[in-house]
Amino acid sequence: MGLRGSLQEIVEKVGGGVGALIMGYDGIPIEEYIQETVFDVQLLAVEYVNVMKEVKRSISVLKTGELEEILISTEQSRIIIRSICDDFFIILMLNGDGNYGKGRFLLKREIPGLREELV
Amino acid sequence: MGLRGSLQEIVEKVGGGVGALIMGYDGIPIEEYIQETVFDVQLLAVEYVNVMKEVKRSISVLKTGELEEILISTEQSRIIIRSICDDFFIILMLNGDGNYGKGRFLLKREIPGLREELV
Repeated sequence: MGLRGSLQEIVEKVGGGVGALIMGYDGIPIEEYIQETVFDVQLLAVEYVNVMKEVKRSISVLKTGELEEILISTEQSRIIIRSICDDFFIILMLNGDGNYGKGRFLLKREIPGLREELV
Repeated sequence: MGLRGSLQEIVEKVGGGVGALIMGYDGIPIEEYIQETVFDVQLLAVEYVNVMKEVKRSISVLKTGELEEILISTEQSRIIIRSICDDFFIILMLNGDGNYGKGRFLLKREIPGLREELV
């Protein structure tokens, strides 16, 4: 179904889905599916690349194994970020009432398929 | 029961608890309770201050409301970070099998008490 189809399925199934992006650690967006334009997606992409770089750096200093997942919740949003491989990661954006557990489950389940399409 | 007592209770109750720290955004640790010394706690504190600063900065750019919680999971660790107030945050460290849900619940429940002691 392709990368965009996979992103669309995740966003539509998750409950409270706003959008999903596949990003490179170099800051280049690979694919995106945005259902509601409540955030500035380009800005979000750039910001979360910086967060991911900082977290990856911290984890390599702390030597606690490979990064698997980051969840960030604010008053109005929930973000789930998961590594696809060394070069790419996926960002799933939910609204403040979004289903965190289902989001985590869907990303985990879809990662092997995304990895196959990307690598 | 004091800050250290609160931290101890969280770490002992959570299931898979390694330790908990209260940190200032200026990088100064306020209080800690470490059950297992599997991480270099000082190093971890410094690293996660940088992560928190980067996340806070991103969130203020994206305007999605105040930061509530960050969860970071790696192969061997699970970290839950929650804002206490504008100046302080708490870091709860679990091992790879730690109970994420219970950790989130305990932090959320204890924050008002911690805030009262700190502010």
